[in-house]
Amino acid sequence: MKRKDYLQKPVESFEIQEGASVSNILDRMAQISFQGRNLSIAYQIWKRMLQDEATIFLGLAGAMVPAGMRKILVYLVENRLIDCLVSTGANLFHDVHETLGRYHWIGSPHTDDVELKDLGIDRIFDTFAIEEEFYHADQYIAKFGRSLDTSREYTTREFLSRLGSQLGQDGKEKGILTSAAEKGVPIYCPAIGDSSIGIALAILYEKEGKKVAFDTIKDVSETARMVIEAKNTGVIYVGGGTPKNFIQQTEVTASYIGGNVTGHTYAIQLTADAPHWGGLSGCTFEEAQSWGKIRKDARMVSVHGDATIALPFIASALSENREIWKDRRIPRFSF
Amino acid sequence: MKRKDYLQKPVESFEIQEGASVSNILDRMAQISFQGRNLSIAYQIWKRMLQDEATIFLGLAGAMVPAGMRKILVYLVENRLIDCLVSTGANLFHDVHETLGRYHWIGSPHTDDVELKDLGIDRIFDTFAIEEEFYHADQYIAKFGRSLDTSREYTTREFLSRLGSQLGQDGKEKGILTSAAEKGVPIYCPAIGDSSIGIALAILYEKEGKKVAFDTIKDVSETARMVIEAKNTGVIYVGGGTPKNFIQQTEVTASYIGGNVTGHTYAIQLTADAPHWGGLSGCTFEEAQSWGKIRKDARMVSVHGDATIALPFIASALSENREIWKDRRIPRFSF
Amino acid sequence: MKRKDYLQKPVESFEIQEGASVSNILDRMAQISFQGRNLSIAYQIWKRMLQDEATIFLGLAGAMVPAGMRKILVYLVENRLIDCLVSTGANLFHDVHETLGRYHWIGSPHTDDVELKDLGIDRIFDTFAIEEEFYHADQYIAKFGRSLDTSREYTTREFLSRLGSQLGQDGKEKGILTSAAEKGVPIYCPAIGDSSIGIALAILYEKEGKKVAFDTIKDVSETARMVIEAKNTGVIYVGGGTPKNFIQQTEVTASYIGGNVTGHTYAIQLTADAPHWGGLSGCTFEEAQSWGKIRKDARMVSVHGDATIALPFIASALSENREIWKDRRIPRFSF
Amino acid sequence: MKRKDYLQKPVESFEIQEGASVSNILDRMAQISFQGRNLSIAYQIWKRMLQDEATIFLGLAGAMVPAGMRKILVYLVENRLIDCLVSTGANLFHDVHETLGRYHWIGSPHTDDVELKDLGIDRIFDTFAIEEEFYHADQYIAKFGRSLDTSREYTTREFLSRLGSQLGQDGKEKGILTSAAEKGVPIYCPAIGDSSIGIALAILYEKEGKKVAFDTIKDVSETARMVIEAKNTGVIYVGGGTPKNFIQQTEVTASYIGGNVTGHTYAIQLTADAPHWGGLSGCTFEEAQSWGKIRKDARMVSVHGDATIALPFIASALSENREIWKDRRIPRFSF
Repeated sequence: MKRKDYLQKPVESFEIQEGASVSNILDRMAQISFQGRNLSIAYQIWKRMLQDEATIFLGLAGAMVPAGMRKILVYLVENRLIDCLVSTGANLFHDVHETLGRYHWIGSPHTDDVELKDLGIDRIFDTFAIEEEFYHADQYIAKFGRSLDTSREYTTREFLSRLGSQLGQDGKEKGILTSAAEKGVPIYCPAIGDSSIGIALAILYEKEGKKVAFDTIKDVSETARMVIEAKNTGVIYVGGGTPKNFIQQTEVTASYIGGNVTGHTYAIQLTADAPHWGGLSGCTFEEAQSWGKIRKDARMVSVHGDATIALPFIASALSENREIWKDRRIPRFSF
Repeated sequence: MKRKDYLQKPVESFEIQEGASVSNILDRMAQISFQGRNLSIAYQIWKRMLQDEATIFLGLAGAMVPAGMRKILVYLVENRLIDCLVSTGANLFHDVHETLGRYHWIGSPHTDDVELKDLGIDRIFDTFAIEEEFYHADQYIAKFGRSLDTSREYTTREFLSRLGSQLGQDGKEKGILTSAAEKGVPIYCPAIGDSSIGIALAILYEKEGKKVAFDTIKDVSETARMVIEAKNTGVIYVGGGTPKNFIQQTEVTASYIGGNVTGHTYAIQLTADAPHWGGLSGCTFEEAQSWGKIRKDARMVSVHGDATIALPFIASALSENREIWKDRRIPRFSF
Repeated sequence: MKRKDYLQKPVESFEIQEGASVSNILDRMAQISFQGRNLSIAYQIWKRMLQDEATIFLGLAGAMVPAGMRKILVYLVENRLIDCLVSTGANLFHDVHETLGRYHWIGSPHTDDVELKDLGIDRIFDTFAIEEEFYHADQYIAKFGRSLDTSREYTTREFLSRLGSQLGQDGKEKGILTSAAEKGVPIYCPAIGDSSIGIALAILYEKEGKKVAFDTIKDVSETARMVIEAKNTGVIYVGGGTPKNFIQQTEVTASYIGGNVTGHTYAIQLTADAPHWGGLSGCTFEEAQSWGKIRKDARMVSVHGDATIALPFIASALSENREIWKDRRIPRFSF
Repeated sequence: MKRKDYLQKPVESFEIQEGASVSNILDRMAQISFQGRNLSIAYQIWKRMLQDEATIFLGLAGAMVPAGMRKILVYLVENRLIDCLVSTGANLFHDVHETLGRYHWIGSPHTDDVELKDLGIDRIFDTFAIEEEFYHADQYIAKFGRSLDTSREYTTREFLSRLGSQLGQDGKEKGILTSAAEKGVPIYCPAIGDSSIGIALAILYEKEGKKVAFDTIKDVSETARMVIEAKNTGVIYVGGGTPKNFIQQTEVTASYIGGNVTGHTYAIQLTADAPHWGGLSGCTFEEAQSWGKIRKDARMVSVHGDATIALPFIASALSENREIWKDRRIPRFSF
């Protein structure tokens, strides 16, 4: 390569324009550097996914619902800016809690946690919640579990879809689970036992001997089939953890069970982790290309930072592009 | 408080002593500051757990087996420096791979991942593996799955214990699974579908219709019962993720199903995460006290940094304290 | 305290509103959690500084000019949203480079740096620059240095103000130095030798025996006097390093030389560092309160993340509040 | 390349050996992955520097003296495991404080900083100090400054060497400054005004009109000349900031003033920063190769984590290799 091959486009210093829209700001941030540029690229890639008939998976980890991201997720589900959600159990549990009309509270990380314990307040960094209200949500889920058929297994998708429908009747407002149930957006939870949902069902089992059974392996098969049937796929990772790995591995499973798959075509991660610790949560999409999880020529970006900053701005900018996605062809799933 | 209440012990500048043992170095690091002090405290707390008849849970996340931490885990299991392991599926899968006589390789993060893909090499930060060997391990697990009874469910503990026993016969050397099976150390994997183990079993299901079923909820119950039956408990988190949350929640489940529990008594985490992102992986043990997951007067420490540095030194230092743990009273589990 | 004292304000899940302005979005982010909330608080505190006749210091570290933040700084200087800038030498050098009509270029972190070296391209993470153009800027600064009086010392403020004025005549466009010179905004550079400015002046000294002398201690005195004379002070740290420490220590110096100072009243930091490493760059403002550098009842916030995301949004939102700052009373400095 | 070119050396799982020496442990950590491997490589590279007649620069940033690293630095200086120190002013100030017989104290990050302020205690993360003792050290430095010749300028090297000699007479014990003065190891402080040393001298100026003048530019020249005269150079960065940049830029200055330099040959950094924020503190040595600051074929490594863990272990291991460095040929400097 020659020098001019490397120097094709100058950095354009960001100009403050009074009243600029979020989409205009993000468009111009493509010409700056570091994570500001990456945030802009994430927005551009998401638009491309929406225009290219990709099946869009979103992986959700971290305490995003307590942090106030729930209605953004509802917006993404309702407007079909995503097609499948894979989540930690905690975010879904907190969604149940809020849909039942309860709150998380503005708190502080500088508190006496022993005093909070005595007052029945649970802390999530700078956010509080009332312990006994969580117990009520546990009870709600246990009651729902009681209504299920213990002679068969449920995929987490079916379990969560049924829970969403029930909650649609009982809840005080729309939530992630209710909207997904209504819109037919599947939700998977690969470690469902590892959350208050698991706790609620363990109580049900311990106290009443009634055990809800999950079809863990069918979750794996179904998501691999979704990838096989897709024209192409896009992935968005809010945090890492189980949801990221679960969506990444769909490509591996799909290739083994006979799909002609070549890795996800579009990939975004919003992460506070770093590659040098060696874990999956912080690893680059380049690393994922060696595994065949991400396509060789994928459009991909990692945005380092907190999703509570990135998501409000990206989603707001997407909302300004309704003409791109309002008539989007939505993938149909065969389950 | 008065000034002298705050100023009780001076920092003692660390003195280089030629030939000092690791335990001596860690002892003296108690008098320095920042993460060096915390590493020392972690070592002290682990010794206290061992002396106090605590049931010790270790949560394992991050690619610790590919990174060369496998034999440390084997050492901890064989010498009963831990009593229960909760792991990501990936670490257990990589343990199967190595126990079958295969390797991970010294690699580099600065590579052409598309070329690696073409050569069938999977990259984990600075470490390589041969893709087709992973497929062999997948096949091995599928074959093992074929031997199971599909008319009933397995806890991940039972599944992994049986897998360890089988592997003890087939393997080329000792591993985490084989040692745990031999020593009766239970291993749980809350997101077992979310790993190559899950992929292997999904292939088995897709190709042969044979489906291994996991008793996700019994995993939750069993671990809560272990906590209820313990004199007291100690927790060690290598990374965060599902294993950390799963061990933390045992206290909540235990309190709901009738145990007189007050939170884990000893707590260590080795983490590269930070509290200010709000997630469970990086949260402080103080935060966990508000939830009742950690005891009000627990001895606890977070060591920020890479476990591939912390573990070799802490475990080496523990090995110098054989008199403390050689006759340790080992908890018995009633499953 | 009672439970209700802790639970005064619920988290309000962020609602996507098509066409919402940046200031509206940031206002509503005050009700979410984690760094999203902190970004909102940073914006609120900056507005308060502007309304409270505070003398506003901005510390600038990190490669912010190459990253495209230069015109934001120009905007802040020209509209007097800050009153004093303390910077690393590198940012000022890169400002000279761009004001002379040259560029930084959109690059990539995944490159062959040895090839770049051979092509004469310098890399700054994902940004490129032409090595020989940097040499031209060095020559420009050496030439400017040649015009100075070597029989006396210059504060970095005077040096940079004169450089800004000269550059105003020679440059192709406005920059940080030229705008600051024009608007009378003082710029300090506590480690001026430690940058290409220092390199340029060392070349001048080595080749021509002409040595520019800096009055390092007067820089310290002057900034302490600015604090003493201020009604109150606000500080904004983009990164940490020398600029942060230099501005923080003004309070200590001021108290020693007789000022009735009680710490900065308003404090914002945009940082990618963390407190647990123990360094000044990542430390909390609470820690600074123990030193008396930040007032006991200060309004203060740390926003963890990349300033290339935070600055464009905060500055854009401030630009929508022209009525707050257009008639702001500007502090006068007595040097 | 073929597959076997990538797969030359397997990861060797780390084996716990009771009583293994630190050097043995670090040797074996070369075969593991992630930051554990990097820590081992750092140790190997340092040994190579010592064997290859390199002039060794150590850059010191972060509150390393309060954290208990002071005697390690003394050991490195006294045994000439380093040849030149570049430091923040704070570390040197805290060295004066301790050499005068005063302490830093074991503290906690969970304190009421407003109460600490009222008690006259300064906090550095988990470490305390007595504010008025810092004032005594300020007074000591002011008194020393009073003894200097105000009609001429001092390089920071000369200033600090004289201060070290004076302190050798007045101090209660050996320190970094006293040992360096005795052994002829030069110390530079590129931002000397930006520290309590600067504060002390500003007080002297404000109260007595006596102003110590620093020859900032000669610091730059001298260090560039040291590089030109060296057979080759090795650099060790404890943290980033001004010390790292100052040592890195010696290569650039040296090349401009006529030296035949090709970048530092050996390079180690112990850092808690990350490359993706774009700053110099966290940037890779690969990036530095594009600038010519690090040699194309340099041996180099970044160890991510806290230096308070890395330094005690690396320095202890080096102490076990006395045969390597006891007769080391020490560079002579011509100032």
